[in-house]
Parts: sequence; structure tokens; C-alpha cells
Amino acid sequence: MPSSFGTTLTVTVFGQSHSEAIGCVIDGLPSGLTIDQDALATFSVRRAPGRMPWDTPRLESDSFRVLSGLTSKSVTCGAPIALLIENSDARSSDYDRTNSVFRPGHADFSAWKKWHGRQDAYGGGQFSGRLTAPLCLAGGIALQALEHQGIQIAAHVQSAAGIADEPFDAFSNNSQAQVHLEHQIAALHDGRIISTINQEAGEKLTAALMEIRAEGDTTGGLVECVATGFPAGVGSPLFDGLESRISQAIFSIPAVKGIEFGLGFRVSEARGSFNNDPYEIRNGQPQPATNNAGGILGGISTGAPLLFSCAFKPVPSISLPQQSVDYTSNEEITLQVHGRHDTCVALRAVPVVEGMTALVLLDALLSYPAEPKRNPYEE
Amino acid sequence: MPSSFGTTLTVTVFGQSHSEAIGCVIDGLPSGLTIDQDALATFSVRRAPGRMPWDTPRLESDSFRVLSGLTSKSVTCGAPIALLIENSDARSSDYDRTNSVFRPGHADFSAWKKWHGRQDAYGGGQFSGRLTAPLCLAGGIALQALEHQGIQIAAHVQSAAGIADEPFDAFSNNSQAQVHLEHQIAALHDGRIISTINQEAGEKLTAALMEIRAEGDTTGGLVECVATGFPAGVGSPLFDGLESRISQAIFSIPAVKGIEFGLGFRVSEARGSFNNDPYEIRNGQPQPATNNAGGILGGISTGAPLLFSCAFKPVPSISLPQQSVDYTSNEEITLQVHGRHDTCVALRAVPVVEGMTALVLLDALLSYPAEPKRNPYEE
Amino acid sequence: MPSSFGTTLTVTVFGQSHSEAIGCVIDGLPSGLTIDQDALATFSVRRAPGRMPWDTPRLESDSFRVLSGLTSKSVTCGAPIALLIENSDARSSDYDRTNSVFRPGHADFSAWKKWHGRQDAYGGGQFSGRLTAPLCLAGGIALQALEHQGIQIAAHVQSAAGIADEPFDAFSNNSQAQVHLEHQIAALHDGRIISTINQEAGEKLTAALMEIRAEGDTTGGLVECVATGFPAGVGSPLFDGLESRISQAIFSIPAVKGIEFGLGFRVSEARGSFNNDPYEIRNGQPQPATNNAGGILGGISTGAPLLFSCAFKPVPSISLPQQSVDYTSNEEITLQVHGRHDTCVALRAVPVVEGMTALVLLDALLSYPAEPKRNPYEE
Amino acid sequence: MPSSFGTTLTVTVFGQSHSEAIGCVIDGLPSGLTIDQDALATFSVRRAPGRMPWDTPRLESDSFRVLSGLTSKSVTCGAPIALLIENSDARSSDYDRTNSVFRPGHADFSAWKKWHGRQDAYGGGQFSGRLTAPLCLAGGIALQALEHQGIQIAAHVQSAAGIADEPFDAFSNNSQAQVHLEHQIAALHDGRIISTINQEAGEKLTAALMEIRAEGDTTGGLVECVATGFPAGVGSPLFDGLESRISQAIFSIPAVKGIEFGLGFRVSEARGSFNNDPYEIRNGQPQPATNNAGGILGGISTGAPLLFSCAFKPVPSISLPQQSVDYTSNEEITLQVHGRHDTCVALRAVPVVEGMTALVLLDALLSYPAEPKRNPYEE
Repeated sequence: MPSSFGTTLTVTVFGQSHSEAIGCVIDGLPSGLTIDQDALATFSVRRAPGRMPWDTPRLESDSFRVLSGLTSKSVTCGAPIALLIENSDARSSDYDRTNSVFRPGHADFSAWKKWHGRQDAYGGGQFSGRLTAPLCLAGGIALQALEHQGIQIAAHVQSAAGIADEPFDAFSNNSQAQVHLEHQIAALHDGRIISTINQEAGEKLTAALMEIRAEGDTTGGLVECVATGFPAGVGSPLFDGLESRISQAIFSIPAVKGIEFGLGFRVSEARGSFNNDPYEIRNGQPQPATNNAGGILGGISTGAPLLFSCAFKPVPSISLPQQSVDYTSNEEITLQVHGRHDTCVALRAVPVVEGMTALVLLDALLSYPAEPKRNPYEE
Repeated sequence: MPSSFGTTLTVTVFGQSHSEAIGCVIDGLPSGLTIDQDALATFSVRRAPGRMPWDTPRLESDSFRVLSGLTSKSVTCGAPIALLIENSDARSSDYDRTNSVFRPGHADFSAWKKWHGRQDAYGGGQFSGRLTAPLCLAGGIALQALEHQGIQIAAHVQSAAGIADEPFDAFSNNSQAQVHLEHQIAALHDGRIISTINQEAGEKLTAALMEIRAEGDTTGGLVECVATGFPAGVGSPLFDGLESRISQAIFSIPAVKGIEFGLGFRVSEARGSFNNDPYEIRNGQPQPATNNAGGILGGISTGAPLLFSCAFKPVPSISLPQQSVDYTSNEEITLQVHGRHDTCVALRAVPVVEGMTALVLLDALLSYPAEPKRNPYEE
Repeated sequence: MPSSFGTTLTVTVFGQSHSEAIGCVIDGLPSGLTIDQDALATFSVRRAPGRMPWDTPRLESDSFRVLSGLTSKSVTCGAPIALLIENSDARSSDYDRTNSVFRPGHADFSAWKKWHGRQDAYGGGQFSGRLTAPLCLAGGIALQALEHQGIQIAAHVQSAAGIADEPFDAFSNNSQAQVHLEHQIAALHDGRIISTINQEAGEKLTAALMEIRAEGDTTGGLVECVATGFPAGVGSPLFDGLESRISQAIFSIPAVKGIEFGLGFRVSEARGSFNNDPYEIRNGQPQPATNNAGGILGGISTGAPLLFSCAFKPVPSISLPQQSVDYTSNEEITLQVHGRHDTCVALRAVPVVEGMTALVLLDALLSYPAEPKRNPYEE
Repeated sequence: MPSSFGTTLTVTVFGQSHSEAIGCVIDGLPSGLTIDQDALATFSVRRAPGRMPWDTPRLESDSFRVLSGLTSKSVTCGAPIALLIENSDARSSDYDRTNSVFRPGHADFSAWKKWHGRQDAYGGGQFSGRLTAPLCLAGGIALQALEHQGIQIAAHVQSAAGIADEPFDAFSNNSQAQVHLEHQIAALHDGRIISTINQEAGEKLTAALMEIRAEGDTTGGLVECVATGFPAGVGSPLFDGLESRISQAIFSIPAVKGIEFGLGFRVSEARGSFNNDPYEIRNGQPQPATNNAGGILGGISTGAPLLFSCAFKPVPSISLPQQSVDYTSNEEITLQVHGRHDTCVALRAVPVVEGMTALVLLDALLSYPAEPKRNPYEE
């Protein structure tokens, strides 16, 4: 099921860049959860296009309809929630118009090899970043469910265009670090257009992106994500470990080319004596004293903040001339992509990363409910 | 199904470090494939312990029994293949002996939070690297099936302990690079104990590991993997993309903390004008001219070599004293782990990475069989 | 995923009896298939309410919107097809109004035990027969794909209210029987309101149902379904056999309480010498000479017509007084259900049975594509 | 995954009739459950061949090895349980010997069409009833887990060879009926060779089977199964309903051709006023007063006994001459099957039906854990 995701909590996504509508079906949510639809719309706006000079100017409102699954009081009732976003900007008249030149960096070529030209290629079709709009809504609902359980998820642009944001203070597990981490998370939720912890970094990034845009080019970006309050003992060894589940979800977001947990790639050069997180008694309980593991050992949560970073490639649509092939003539040509496009997709991807992480974590909580401390099978 | 993996081709793994036996069940292989069991044993030996000074001296032969699924001529018949490895070294008498101290870097703590002490903790239980032995066998079978289709998979230790191996020449797609890449792959298959392309790098690495071992410490390592000959057009957008599938598989190998495809994390600082792979006509066909994408665009293969790297953390079992907690007394203590252990797990993980990649790619080929070029539904 | 169904071809259903809309997402269809939307609407009308005196008079048009997955020429493009049916008759004002009395025969009680009153109970909620409308559309699309491959599926009301229709002539595999079977299938597709092979039986059934309706009662019914042209060798032993897959699908239709294949329950009293279908050479090929197996042996198709019957229970909503419990007062009361309801749900279920069967068979064909006759792994 | 079954609790089966061994892997069992291996062996013996004059004389002990997943005290530890049964009677020397004549009633023909002769056909291969031995073990473990929760499952031969056993008294839900039902269940567990509630019926059946056997023929049989103590509110609407799940499981047992729940096929002729189960207050709680629904409404349990019957076809291997085709010569021939075979497979299938039902019900309990009565998301 390439368009479905999750085990106990599942999301099925439909739509193409220029289909009549896009949307998703969310199945497996517990009953009784009140969905704050205004908060969901606000969360979703962080992803929506058209807000910034470097954003694509396509004006989709991303306003959504709830087709099913909620009572008139916006409470989950156990039935799947279907969400619909009309493609107001869809151009049905030229729906079938497809360019016969493979755009470098896009999926045009690989999709053409798969479907021999029968795919919907217009505007990116099924590969369009627009498909992240329903994912963002589904993720926003999962975030609301997690908040009821004291779990917070936040992401930010860790670096892009040579500008680095302050990293999350999530490697240390002591109380002072936790307070700082909460401050960082709060900073990200205060409504800034660019998701950086450090406001100055955000301003520098804005300026850098304007320059790259003026050159007709685009840039990649690094997004860091943290989840706090996630209980220890959730997940599984082997194929259903938290890293396996999160990575599968994050690589489903278009443009992601790498992911690392905790210390990440630095572990490959680290010594065991450095990388191992010692244990201490804190608040009367054994807990990891540091968090190089990024909150996951053996696929199972340790109770420390879950921490990962993921790399987004530059937006493929640049204004500069590129070498490509026209598959109707089977000749090499020079392509110049017109129109206005995002300069750095990592910015708008921030809530998508948060949302996908929320879906994975809520699914893991539902798939692996806490086993009882006392053995239920023992006398 | 935390112990099962795959969609059309599935592998179910069972066993713990000291259970009577470990093994796997492979379902979904096409019929008619002759399995070369000697070649499989040879492939599997690359993972087996006890060959090198820094290897764990536990002498498991890893010799396997085929319980089902093959005819007397070792040909697949459509029924699932079950493979069994007896745990000759299992110590059943002290099977239940568990240490009450959480070993830093291991899954002891997270598993204890999940199962409240009811898990099999002896020797790492279900989290033991020993579970990669059946995965290696399953992967070795998938490799044999892929070779029939002209697909080769090879991995090597790209770097560890400050020693870097020659990288795969897989970023360029031209014919000269392909020849070099084939040489590199051949170099890895000539029976060296340490999997490096460059023999000198392998010798330096051996020396560096001996030193780290003498200090009672361990080190992480980076493994790079390439697949050549994989056809374009295989995979799927969204949740079933090749990066999603491969990353889920690779993070199932114990100790992996990061993965990146193609240019990987470097994309986050790259410009679109650099990262986009242009297209050219080669051998009369449109093909990507470079391969920053690592052979995957939109979750679908481009026909260029599939390329990824993954980071292994240092083996957690070090001889140096570490701070931890005894959960019976709930007190902080200093732990010193005895016994001999691997110095760098990345070395023995090389065939496991190859094998898991083979399982994913064969599964993708079976899940997404080539759609016919000519539309079967058109007159 | 309780709302999703299928392996390679999947259908995800959403909606409740009185939600804003109902619909489905179909994933995994091959590209290039032209969907005749008029034919789909015509097929779907057979299920729609409001056509007959004993039908529920709720006037839902069942007209649908294609939201995604089809090109402007109505051709599948590889992306999932989302279909939407607006609930024009939804009464949102009293959406939350729920009766506090368990209606006998409905799922009110079991759902209340599951969700403790948090389910959407209005009009049957998620349990409503209305959910079969999107299933019928999804099934109708699968039927069009199968027809391209020479596969026909037809169902009829085999018996209800003491009136028996002519049974399908599908037990014998000889040419004469095949001709008769085609006639029977053709008879069912000539636009009759009641799906019986024998027109006289249909008229008798109409009269019998009018009588039962006048008494304020309802009746069950038996539906027989046949698929012709389905190739031999499709399916699987064990848990993925055709009987397992079809039965799972058919029991998902509300009100089904039994299913039997081929000779069905009569096998339990039969001798092996009677039940075994001998083989003969026909058209130069070995084939079963009779068809007590209903076209399936070992979970795999034999090439003979697939044949099964399924039993629908009487519509639970009757006008007669019934004993029940009011869960607010926890007291026994006498319930009298008002409003007009179907008299025999089996009638409108006929295209749903056909459609669900089509979804299973198309999924089986896609999940188990024909293995090549010549072993591809042999020299 | 044709060889795997279940959602949260899964069973993967491997082996063929004459492979080296057969077995299964059970994943998803809660930790802390003590498995009584003696009781499991006793349960399993009810299925084993060689006990009765009409049984196949193949003397497989069915004695099993636990390879993994249990501590030395036979307690589940969260890791999958692998069970192995050696095929002591396997004839590896003539392993590949296959008869070139399709045996009527067996899967020889359909498997040949699927695999073009590449399947393991010897002794029935993967289609052999021998594969039910590991299913029986897996089911026996699930039964032990259910018993801890007060759930009992029992099946009996309801009829065969014209002899009818007393039916379960499970249609009425009153206390007197419950007591009788418990007596019936107890009667089935007292170690009789033939599973009938009524001892006299068992004796008559024995005699009838001896006669059929003497004629060289075989007979089908009807098995009825009941589960008591299963809580109300477990299951799901739509595709994951209890009837869908149970039927998928039961049709996976070789030779089953029909299944019906509660009143079953009789509903198709019943009136709503008869079929609807009224509700009453019993023990202070609302409960169904009768049980025509067989304990399931809308795919969800009602708390009344779960009740279903399934029809087993006659053993295909008869001694009488049969018409068939030799596929090497492509000629019609007369086949006479030699050797000794079961006369009525329904007898030995009784514990398999119980076990498969136990697996489904335990899986449903784990997949749909009781939602909390008090809404956890409400203030």
C-alpha cells in the first residue's frame, strides 16, 4: 500500500498536484478526542505556500473539510477521519499537458521509466510537495492527541545556505538542560515565519535566501526535530524499532536524502567510552545521564528526548539553464524552468517533519501499549 | 509484526543470543531458483565471529540447516524456506542469569522499561548482534536471486578509527566510472578479512583497531553500499519509496544511527544548480549524467548505481569502567564489563548491509514488477 | 487497518451514515485503464436506495466525484483514485441525536460496549449499509479492469422469502454448461430491478416481499455469485487462499452470516467418490470435468467457474414491537422502530457482492502474477 | 505474506509434507505467560495421526522443540516463539518423486498451473494436512493465554456420515443454557478419541466410518465451535470484523468449504422478527436474551457465546478408481490411489479449528484492547 502509512494508526493519502482535490483518511484514532480545528488550521498554515518572497506564489488556501469521523462537536468517534482540500488552483483544462523534457532533480525520469508516460506528470503529479498538505493535517491531529499525554514535538531549520541555528539542547538529560529545551521549543511556537530557535539566525537566513533566489538558484537545508515527554519502553527490537519507523516516515517526505539519530554520523568516528550514555538516579529513578543515543536504544525509547536531524536537498526547480533530454525526440537539450518556486523547501517542511514524527510516535504508543508492570499471568 | 520484514518477499526472524537456536523463514521467493548453499556459507562467514583478534571469541559456526522450501536439488519450490542455526554455544544452565546493572549503550534499560524485567536479557537476548546471522543468510539468498538478473551489491568499511577507505566511484554515471566501480566491487569480493576497497587502508585499519582494543575501548564505523545493474523505474512515490524501504531495513541492524543516500547530508548545504543531475543520451537512451541522487528520485530508481552510507555506533561493551545503576538496589554503581567483544561492529556488519539491501531490492522488484511498455488496456 | 482491504490492490473506506460525505481511496490499480464513468454509475444504481416499494425511501443519488487518480480522459495514472459521495440527506442538525435503546439485530449494543457511547450511532454510523455505496464504486472499477481480461462476475438472489431462483449452471465444466452459464449471466445484466436469472422468480419474489412488508416484517436472502474466465493457477496455499480472501471480503458486507464455495455445506455429508472432480482433456488441455470445488483447490483457482453463495440476514429494522433495554435507565422496554426500511437487503447487496468479489480477484491477479512457464533461473 | 497470519499476534508457518521439518514462529505474545508444554503436547495429540483405524498410519510423533522465545522456566519473554517438529518420516531419497497424474480433489492441478511443475508435490507438499500440526501448537499456546482470561474454546464433530451429534446449547443466553454449555464443553475435554458431545453419537460415528472405509471411500464432516467468556465490545466494523477474521483463518485449514455464524444459512429464510435477538437485563446488565447472531453484531462481540460451524469436504484420497489426466502424456487415465488415508478429516481437524479460533480471538483482544470506559481525553 504505497499510499498508506502506519500500523495501528494509519494514514492514506490521495491526490496529485493538479487533481480536483487532495486529502487523507486517518484510521485508528481513539474515540473521545476533541480536535481543535482552528489550532489545526494554524499549524497547517506554517506549511502553506505563498507567505514569503521565496515561497511558490501558488495560492492554495489549504483550507480543509472534515468529511467524516468527527461528531458535530469535533470529537473522534472511532470511525476514520477523512479530510479534503480542494485544489482551487487546479487547471483542469491543461491537466494532461505534460512537458516532454525530464526536469533534473525531479522524479520525471524515474516515473517515466516506471509508467512509460502514463503517469500524471502535470505539476509534479503524485510527487508534488503539495501532497504534504494532507500529511500536515494528519500530523497536526496526532500532535493534538500527543499533547494530551504530555508529549511535545518541535522542529527547526538547523542550517541552510551557510547559516546555522542554535541546536536543540537535547543531548544532556539534566534538569537545567530540560528547562532550556523547553525554552527552545517555546521559541519555535511563537509564530515566526521562519522556524529557527535563534531569531537572529532566522533573519540572516532570510537575507541569504533572498540572495540565492536572486541568482536563480535554490538551496538545501537541515531540519532538526525533538520530542519530549515520550515515555521510556515504547517501540520494538528488529524491524519495528523507532528508528526504522521514523526513518521510513521521514524519507516519505519529498526531498529528504539523509537522517541521523542522536549523535548521528558522528558515532562512526566516536569511541565507545564517549558514545555510551551512562545511567544515573534522577528523581529517584534510573535514567540516562546523557543522550547521545537520541532517546532510542535497541529500537525502544529511553525516556530521554527523541532527537534526529534530516537533510533536505535543494528544490530542483531552478531558473538557471540545465542540460536534459527531450524524450519525444530523444535528443539532449538545454532546459530553462520558468515560474516561481520555493528557494528552500526545508523551511516549509518543518511542520511536515513534526507531523510525520507525531504520527509515528502516536502509532507506536497505540501499537505497543505499556505492558503492565505486574505480570498479569502470575499468581 | 516486529520480527517480520518485507512486502512480497518477507523474512521472519526468531531467536535470542542464548536460545536453543536462531533462524528465519523466507516467504515469497519465486520458484525454480537454485540456491548455491556453499556460496551462501562462504558469504555468511564474512559476518561470523571468531576470525580476528578483535572479534568476539564466541565460536559459533553459523552453519545452517535448510528445514523446508528447497527440493533435494536445492531449488526453490514456492514454499517458504526455513533456515536454522543451532546455538551450540548457548549456556542453558545459566540462561536466566541476568545482570541487574544496565550496561550503557545496550538496550538493557529501554527493554527493562518495556518488559519490566520479563525480557530475556542474557547475552543481549533479542537485541544481540547474533540475530544478524539469519538475516545474513536470508540476504545471501536474495543476492543469489539478484545476480541472476545482473544486479550486484557490495559494501565496504568507508571509514573507522580515523582511517578512510577509497569511496565508491558511483557518483558519475559514465562508462569509465562504471568500469572503475566494477573493479571496486571485485576488490571487495576477493576474500579479504576486512572489507575495504583499498588494501592498504585495510591494513591501517587493522593496526588502528588493535590499538583501540588495547586501550579497552571500541570504535564506530561508516559502511558504504552500492547496487549496480538495478533497473530504472522500480519503487514508488510516498511511503513505499526505495529510501523509505532501505532505511527501515538498515536501521533494523543493531547499532546503526544514521543513513544517507547519494550526496546525503551534503545536500543540505548544496545549491540546486550543483545537486541536480542533468540528463544525457548514453547508449541511445536518456540517462542521468551524474548521480548525486544515489540512484533514486521520488522513491523510484533511475538506473544509476544505488548508493548509500550508514553509520554504526561503537560497540557498547568496553573494558573501561562506566557509571550505571543497579536496578535491584536502585543505586548508582561503577560497572566494568568483562569478556572479549568486538572492537568495531561495522566490519562484520558489511555482509549484513549487503544482505538487507538485497532483500529490499528483490522485494521491490517483486512488489513492483515492470509495467508493460505498451498499455495493455489500450486497443 | 479496519477500514482498508486488500494486499496489492487496496481500498480504504470512510464515512458514516450521516457524515458530510462517504467515499473510498483505491490504490494499486495499473496505469492506462480507461474508466467508463457512465457504466460505473449504471452499475452503482443497482445498489442505490429508493427504487422499489420495499426500499428505504432515503433519496441519496449516489452520484460520485472523482477527486484524484484519473486523467482528464478518465484514464488511471498510477496514483490512487479517491471517490466522494456527498451525503445530501445528512441531517447535521440532529447529527448527535442518539437513541438510548439498543435496536435488536443492529450493532448498537456491541458498538456501545466497544466505545462506551462515544461512537457515532446516528443512522447506524459506521455500520450503516450506506458504506457499501463506495465499496460498490470501487468494485465496479475492478469489474471494468477484469472485463479487459475476459473475466465476468455475476450474482443473483438465489432465494428469499421462500422463493427460489434458478441456480447457476456452474457445477459442470462442459461446453454446453458454459453456454448456459453465459446465458444466465447475460440475463442478470439486462437491467431488471430484481436480480434473478428467472424472470418469473423475480416477479414472485416481488409479491412475497410486498406481503412481508405489509406485516411490518423483513426477510433474509441467499445470494449466489459466479466468476467466469478467471485463469487457473492464481492464489496461494494457507492464509492467502482464494476462499480465505473472498470470505474476509464478503463478511465485511453488513448482514452476511454464512458463505460456502462450490458444493458448500453439502460436502460435509458427501463421499469422496462423489465430491472429487475428475480431470479430463478438453480443448487439448487437462481440466476438471465437474466443479464441486467451486473453482478452487488448495486456495488456488482451477480455471473452472468460481462459485459461492452467501447468506444475508433479515434487515433488523422491523415495524413490530421488540423487547430491548434503555441504557440510560438500565431498564427493559418495548421498542417500536419507525420509518421505512428495506424489506430484504439481499436484493440491493447483489452488486456489492459482485464488486467485492471483483476487488478480491483483481487483487489476487496483481498479488500473484502468472509465474513464467519456462523457469527464468534455468539455463 | 501467504504463510503468515494475524495482525498483532502473528503466526508464520513453514514446511512441506516431506521437508526435513515443519514448524512455526509466533510473534506478539505478551511477556510473562507460562506455557505448560505438557498440556500443549496433550492438546496437540488430538490432531496427530496414527491413533485410530481410519487414521493415516504415518507415525509422526508431532513432538516439538521450542527453539526460542521461552525462558528456561517456559515463560514468554517478548521474543518470538519458534517451534520445530522434525519430519521423522520424511523420505528424502525420493523427495523429488512426483506423480504425473493429478489426484482429483487435491491441489495437484491448481498448483501445477501456478508453478508449472516446480512446486514440491511429494505427499501434498505445502498443501498437506501435516501443516496443521504447527498451527495446532500455535493455537494451543493461544488457548492457554485465553484461559487465563476466562475464555474457553471447544469444537466437536457436529455431523458426519449421516450421524449427528448433539448441538451446542449456545443459542440461548440464559443461565440454565450456560450451565448446559459448560457441561458440553467439559464433555469434549474428557479425553475421548472422537470429539462428540454425546458419547453414543461418537460410537455410532466410529462404526459408520469403519463401513465407509471398508468401501474404499471417505466422507466429509461438519465441525461446530464455540467460545465462551469472550468479552463484549471486541472487534471492528468493516474489513476487520470478527466474522471476517475467523473465516479467513478457518478457510486456511485444508478441506474447509463453508462457514456460518450463529443461525448461519438459516438466516436467509428467516424473518427479522425471528432472527433479531432481543435485549434483557441480566445480572444487572443489558445483554442479548437469545443468540441467533452467534455472538457477533457489526463485526464486534456481544458477550454471548461465539458460535460457528464449518464444513470439511471428504478426504480426496480414496481407494476407488477415478478418472484423471497424466500431464506428461496429456492423456486421460484411470487413477487408483494406494496407501492408507484418513476416512474423515473433520475428526482430527477439531483441535485445529479450536486453535485457529484461539489465535484469532487472542489477536483481536491484543489488536483492539478495551477502550477505557471514562474518556481519557475529557476533563
